[in-house]
Amino acid sequence: MPNPKRPSLYTTPEDAEAAFYEALQKGDADALIAVWSEDEEVVCVHPTGTQLVGLELIRESWRSIFSTTRLRLSSALVTRWQDMLLAIHHLVETVFIGDSQTPHGPLFVTHVYSRGAHGWRLVSRHASAASENHESEPKSDGASRILH
Amino acid sequence: MPNPKRPSLYTTPEDAEAAFYEALQKGDADALIAVWSEDEEVVCVHPTGTQLVGLELIRESWRSIFSTTRLRLSSALVTRWQDMLLAIHHLVETVFIGDSQTPHGPLFVTHVYSRGAHGWRLVSRHASAASENHESEPKSDGASRILH
Repeated sequence: MPNPKRPSLYTTPEDAEAAFYEALQKGDADALIAVWSEDEEVVCVHPTGTQLVGLELIRESWRSIFSTTRLRLSSALVTRWQDMLLAIHHLVETVFIGDSQTPHGPLFVTHVYSRGAHGWRLVSRHASAASENHESEPKSDGASRILH
Repeated sequence: MPNPKRPSLYTTPEDAEAAFYEALQKGDADALIAVWSEDEEVVCVHPTGTQLVGLELIRESWRSIFSTTRLRLSSALVTRWQDMLLAIHHLVETVFIGDSQTPHGPLFVTHVYSRGAHGWRLVSRHASAASENHESEPKSDGASRILH
Protein backbone atom coordinates (compact mmCIF):
# COMPACT_ATOMS: atom_id res chain seq x y z
CA MET A 1 0.00 0.00 0.00
CA PRO A 2 1.54 3.33 -0.94
CA ASN A 3 2.39 5.59 1.94
CA PRO A 4 0.85 8.99 1.21
CA LYS A 5 3.60 10.66 3.23
CA ARG A 6 6.28 9.03 1.12
CA PRO A 7 7.37 11.53 -1.52
CA SER A 8 7.33 10.55 -5.16
CA LEU A 9 10.46 9.28 -6.85
CA TYR A 10 11.20 11.55 -9.79
CA THR A 11 13.03 9.72 -12.53
CA THR A 12 14.02 12.89 -14.39
CA PRO A 13 14.67 16.53 -13.41
CA GLU A 14 11.71 17.41 -15.67
CA ASP A 15 9.39 15.25 -13.53
CA ALA A 16 10.59 17.01 -10.39
CA GLU A 17 10.14 20.40 -12.05
CA ALA A 18 6.61 19.56 -13.19
CA ALA A 19 5.73 18.54 -9.61
CA PHE A 20 7.24 21.78 -8.30
CA TYR A 21 5.13 23.93 -10.63
CA GLU A 22 2.00 21.89 -9.93
CA ALA A 23 2.44 22.38 -6.17
CA LEU A 24 3.17 26.07 -6.69
CA GLN A 25 -0.02 26.60 -8.65
CA LYS A 26 -2.03 24.64 -6.07
CA GLY A 27 -0.48 26.71 -3.29
CA ASP A 28 0.48 23.48 -1.52
CA ALA A 29 3.63 24.13 0.51
CA ASP A 30 4.01 20.51 1.66
CA ALA A 31 3.77 19.17 -1.89
CA LEU A 32 6.22 21.85 -3.02
CA ILE A 33 8.71 20.96 -0.27
CA ALA A 34 8.41 17.25 -1.14
CA VAL A 35 10.19 18.04 -4.42
CA TRP A 36 13.30 19.27 -2.57
CA SER A 37 16.14 17.06 -1.38
CA GLU A 38 16.03 16.04 2.27
CA ASP A 39 19.63 14.88 2.21
CA GLU A 40 21.43 18.02 1.14
CA GLU A 41 21.84 21.67 2.04
CA VAL A 42 19.15 23.37 -0.01
CA VAL A 43 18.90 27.02 -1.02
CA CYS A 44 16.05 29.23 -2.21
CA VAL A 45 16.57 32.83 -3.35
CA HIS A 46 13.29 34.71 -3.76
CA PRO A 47 12.89 37.57 -6.26
CA THR A 48 12.27 39.81 -3.26
CA GLY A 49 15.99 39.46 -2.41
CA THR A 50 15.71 36.94 0.41
CA GLN A 51 18.00 33.91 0.57
CA LEU A 52 16.83 30.92 2.58
CA VAL A 53 19.15 28.03 3.44
CA GLY A 54 17.61 24.79 4.73
CA LEU A 55 14.36 22.96 4.14
CA GLU A 56 12.48 24.31 7.17
CA LEU A 57 13.09 27.96 6.35
CA ILE A 58 12.11 27.32 2.74
CA ARG A 59 8.92 25.52 3.83
CA GLU A 60 7.95 28.36 6.21
CA SER A 61 8.57 30.91 3.52
CA TRP A 62 6.35 29.21 0.92
CA ARG A 63 3.64 28.62 3.54
CA SER A 64 3.70 32.32 4.28
CA ILE A 65 3.51 33.20 0.56
CA PHE A 66 0.65 30.75 -0.09
CA SER A 67 -1.28 31.98 2.98
CA THR A 68 -1.79 35.35 1.30
CA THR A 69 -1.16 34.83 -2.40
CA ARG A 70 -2.48 32.59 -5.15
CA LEU A 71 0.00 32.23 -7.99
CA ARG A 72 -0.39 31.12 -11.56
CA LEU A 73 2.59 30.99 -13.81
CA SER A 74 4.06 29.81 -17.05
CA SER A 75 7.71 28.92 -17.52
CA ALA A 76 9.93 28.63 -20.58
CA LEU A 77 13.25 26.84 -20.64
CA VAL A 78 16.19 29.00 -21.75
CA THR A 79 18.98 26.44 -21.45
CA ARG A 80 19.99 23.48 -19.34
CA TRP A 81 22.89 21.25 -18.46
CA GLN A 82 22.73 17.70 -17.17
CA ASP A 83 25.06 14.86 -16.37
CA MET A 84 24.72 11.75 -14.21
CA LEU A 85 23.98 13.37 -10.88
CA LEU A 86 23.27 17.05 -11.42
CA ALA A 87 20.99 19.07 -13.67
CA ILE A 88 20.65 22.83 -14.04
CA HIS A 89 17.68 24.50 -15.74
CA HIS A 90 17.56 28.18 -16.64
CA LEU A 91 13.98 29.35 -17.06
CA VAL A 92 11.99 32.48 -17.58
CA GLU A 93 8.79 32.54 -15.50
CA THR A 94 5.80 34.76 -16.07
CA VAL A 95 3.77 35.11 -12.88
CA PHE A 96 0.13 36.06 -12.42
CA ILE A 97 -1.08 36.91 -8.92
CA GLY A 98 -4.66 36.06 -7.92
CA ASP A 99 -7.09 36.60 -10.79
CA SER A 100 -5.05 39.36 -12.37
CA GLN A 101 -4.50 39.10 -16.10
CA THR A 102 -1.47 41.38 -15.83
CA PRO A 103 1.75 39.39 -15.61
CA HIS A 104 4.36 40.09 -12.97
CA GLY A 105 7.92 39.51 -13.85
CA PRO A 106 9.25 37.97 -15.92
CA LEU A 107 11.49 36.21 -13.45
CA PHE A 108 14.86 34.71 -14.32
CA VAL A 109 15.17 31.35 -12.58
CA THR A 110 18.00 28.87 -12.06
CA HIS A 111 16.90 25.47 -10.75
CA VAL A 112 19.49 22.91 -9.64
CA TYR A 113 18.53 19.24 -9.30
CA SER A 114 20.53 16.45 -7.71
CA ARG A 115 20.00 12.74 -8.24
CA GLY A 116 20.11 10.62 -5.09
CA ALA A 117 18.54 7.52 -3.61
CA HIS A 118 15.10 9.12 -4.00
CA GLY A 119 15.51 10.13 -7.62
CA TRP A 120 15.95 13.69 -8.83
CA ARG A 121 15.27 16.39 -6.28
CA LEU A 122 15.49 20.16 -6.27
CA VAL A 123 18.44 21.47 -4.27
CA SER A 124 18.39 25.12 -5.31
CA ARG A 125 16.03 27.70 -6.76
CA HIS A 126 17.41 31.16 -7.55
CA ALA A 127 14.76 33.57 -8.86
CA SER A 128 15.21 37.25 -9.63
CA ALA A 129 13.09 39.89 -11.32
CA ALA A 130 13.81 41.08 -14.83
CA SER A 131 14.29 44.79 -15.31
CA GLU A 132 11.27 46.63 -16.65
CA ASN A 133 12.73 46.99 -20.12
CA HIS A 134 13.34 43.26 -20.47
CA GLU A 135 11.70 41.83 -23.59
CA SER A 136 8.70 39.84 -22.45
CA GLU A 137 9.18 37.04 -24.98
CA PRO A 138 11.65 34.44 -23.79
CA LYS A 139 13.81 32.66 -26.31
CA SER A 140 11.54 30.00 -27.73
CA ASP A 141 14.19 27.65 -29.08
CA GLY A 142 15.25 26.50 -25.62
CA ALA A 143 18.69 25.03 -26.03
CA SER A 144 19.68 22.05 -24.00
CA ARG A 145 22.78 20.07 -23.42
CA ILE A 146 23.12 16.63 -21.93
CA LEU A 147 26.65 15.75 -20.90
CA HIS A 148 27.87 12.20 -21.22
CA MET B 1 56.14 28.89 -26.23
CA PRO B 2 52.81 29.54 -24.56
CA ASN B 3 50.22 31.22 -26.72
CA PRO B 4 48.95 34.24 -24.81
CA LYS B 5 45.62 33.96 -26.62
CA ARG B 6 45.16 30.38 -25.48
CA PRO B 7 43.00 30.37 -22.36
CA SER B 8 44.17 28.63 -19.24
CA LEU B 9 43.06 25.11 -18.46
CA TYR B 10 41.34 25.18 -15.08
CA THR B 11 41.66 21.86 -13.31
CA THR B 12 39.01 22.68 -10.70
CA PRO B 13 35.90 24.89 -10.60
CA GLU B 14 37.66 26.82 -7.81
CA ASP B 15 40.54 27.68 -10.18
CA ALA B 16 38.06 28.96 -12.77
CA GLU B 17 36.25 30.97 -10.09
CA ALA B 18 39.48 32.51 -8.82
CA ALA B 19 40.34 33.56 -12.39
CA PHE B 20 36.86 35.03 -12.84
CA TYR B 21 37.17 37.19 -9.71
CA GLU B 22 40.72 38.22 -10.58
CA ALA B 23 39.58 39.41 -14.03
CA LEU B 24 36.57 41.15 -12.50
CA GLN B 25 38.74 43.09 -10.07
CA LYS B 26 41.18 44.01 -12.85
CA GLY B 27 38.28 45.15 -15.02
CA ASP B 28 39.62 42.92 -17.82
CA ALA B 29 36.65 41.78 -19.95
CA ASP B 30 38.75 39.51 -22.19
CA ALA B 31 40.29 37.71 -19.21
CA LEU B 32 36.85 37.42 -17.65
CA ILE B 33 35.35 35.97 -20.83
CA ALA B 34 38.25 33.49 -21.12
CA VAL B 35 36.87 31.76 -18.02
CA TRP B 36 33.57 30.97 -19.78
CA SER B 37 32.94 27.93 -21.95
CA GLU B 38 33.24 28.46 -25.70
CA ASP B 39 31.50 25.19 -26.45
CA GLU B 40 28.17 25.66 -24.70
CA GLU B 41 25.24 28.03 -24.48
CA VAL B 42 26.24 30.39 -21.69
CA VAL B 43 24.03 32.63 -19.57
CA CYS B 44 24.69 35.68 -17.40
CA VAL B 45 21.95 37.32 -15.29
CA HIS B 46 23.04 40.69 -13.89
CA PRO B 47 21.66 42.06 -10.60
CA THR B 48 20.15 44.88 -12.66
CA GLY B 49 17.65 42.34 -14.05
CA THR B 50 19.23 41.75 -17.45
CA GLN B 51 19.68 38.25 -18.83
CA LEU B 52 22.34 37.71 -21.50
CA VAL B 53 22.57 34.48 -23.50
CA GLY B 54 25.73 33.84 -25.53
CA LEU B 55 29.39 34.72 -25.11
CA GLU B 56 29.40 37.83 -27.31
CA LEU B 57 26.53 39.54 -25.49
CA ILE B 58 28.14 38.69 -22.15
CA ARG B 59 31.51 40.07 -23.33
CA GLU B 60 29.93 43.33 -24.55
CA SER B 61 28.06 43.72 -21.31
CA TRP B 62 31.15 43.35 -19.11
CA ARG B 63 33.15 45.65 -21.41
CA SER B 64 30.45 48.24 -20.96
CA ILE B 65 30.46 47.80 -17.17
CA PHE B 66 34.27 47.99 -16.96
CA SER B 67 34.40 51.07 -19.21
CA THR B 68 32.66 53.11 -16.53
CA THR B 69 33.04 51.20 -13.27
CA ARG B 70 35.88 49.80 -11.22
CA LEU B 71 34.74 46.97 -8.98
CA ARG B 72 36.26 45.40 -5.90
CA LEU B 73 34.51 42.56 -4.20
CA SER B 74 34.69 39.78 -1.70
CA SER B 75 32.79 36.54 -2.01
CA ALA B 76 31.80 33.88 0.50
CA LEU B 77 30.68 30.37 -0.41
CA VAL B 78 27.25 29.41 0.92
CA THR B 79 27.01 25.91 -0.50
CA ARG B 80 28.06 23.92 -3.54
CA TRP B 81 27.43 20.71 -5.45
CA GLN B 82 29.85 18.92 -7.73
CA ASP B 83 30.05 15.71 -9.65
CA MET B 84 32.17 14.56 -12.60
CA LEU B 85 31.15 17.17 -15.14
CA LEU B 86 29.16 19.89 -13.41
CA ALA B 87 29.67 22.11 -10.38
CA ILE B 88 27.37 24.68 -8.81
CA HIS B 89 28.53 27.30 -6.32
CA HIS B 90 26.17 29.49 -4.32
CA LEU B 91 27.98 32.61 -3.10
CA VAL B 92 27.29 35.88 -1.39
CA GLU B 93 29.26 38.75 -2.92
CA THR B 94 29.92 42.10 -1.30
CA VAL B 95 30.69 44.72 -3.94
CA PHE B 96 32.58 48.01 -3.62
CA ILE B 97 32.40 50.47 -6.49
CA GLY B 98 35.41 52.71 -7.23
CA ASP B 99 37.13 53.84 -4.05
CA SER B 100 33.97 53.75 -1.96
CA GLN B 101 34.25 52.03 1.41
CA THR B 102 30.48 51.51 1.45
CA PRO B 103 29.54 48.06 0.21
CA HIS B 104 26.85 47.55 -2.40
CA GLY B 105 24.82 44.44 -2.21
CA PRO B 106 25.22 41.86 -0.91
CA LEU B 107 24.54 39.92 -4.08
CA PHE B 108 23.29 36.35 -4.15
CA VAL B 109 25.17 34.47 -6.86
CA THR B 110 24.81 31.06 -8.49
CA HIS B 111 27.78 30.01 -10.63
CA VAL B 112 27.56 26.89 -12.80
CA TYR B 113 30.75 25.25 -14.13
CA SER B 114 31.05 22.54 -16.74
CA ARG B 115 34.07 20.31 -17.31
CA GLY B 116 35.05 19.83 -20.93
CA ALA B 117 38.13 19.34 -23.08
CA HIS B 118 39.51 22.65 -21.78
CA GLY B 119 38.99 21.91 -18.11
CA TRP B 120 36.36 23.56 -15.94
CA ARG B 121 34.64 26.60 -17.43
CA LEU B 122 31.89 28.90 -16.30
CA VAL B 123 28.62 28.33 -18.17
CA SER B 124 26.26 30.43 -16.06
CA ARG B 125 26.34 33.29 -13.59
CA HIS B 126 23.07 34.36 -11.96
CA ALA B 127 23.44 37.35 -9.64
CA SER B 128 20.67 39.20 -7.83
CA ALA B 129 20.57 41.87 -5.16
CA ALA B 130 19.69 41.07 -1.56
CA SER B 131 16.84 43.00 -0.03
CA GLU B 132 17.88 45.88 2.20
CA ASN B 133 17.04 44.04 5.39
CA HIS B 134 19.24 41.07 4.51
CA GLU B 135 21.83 40.35 7.20
CA SER B 136 25.16 41.50 5.85
CA GLU B 137 27.13 38.59 7.31
CA PRO B 138 27.03 35.56 5.07
CA LYS B 139 27.09 32.11 6.61
CA SER B 140 30.72 31.50 7.39
CA ASP B 141 30.61 27.71 7.61
CA GLY B 142 30.18 27.26 3.87
CA ALA B 143 28.81 23.79 3.38
CA SER B 144 29.90 21.77 0.42
CA ARG B 145 28.98 18.49 -1.12
CA ILE B 146 30.94 16.49 -3.63
CA LEU B 147 28.92 13.77 -5.34
CA HIS B 148 30.62 10.56 -6.33
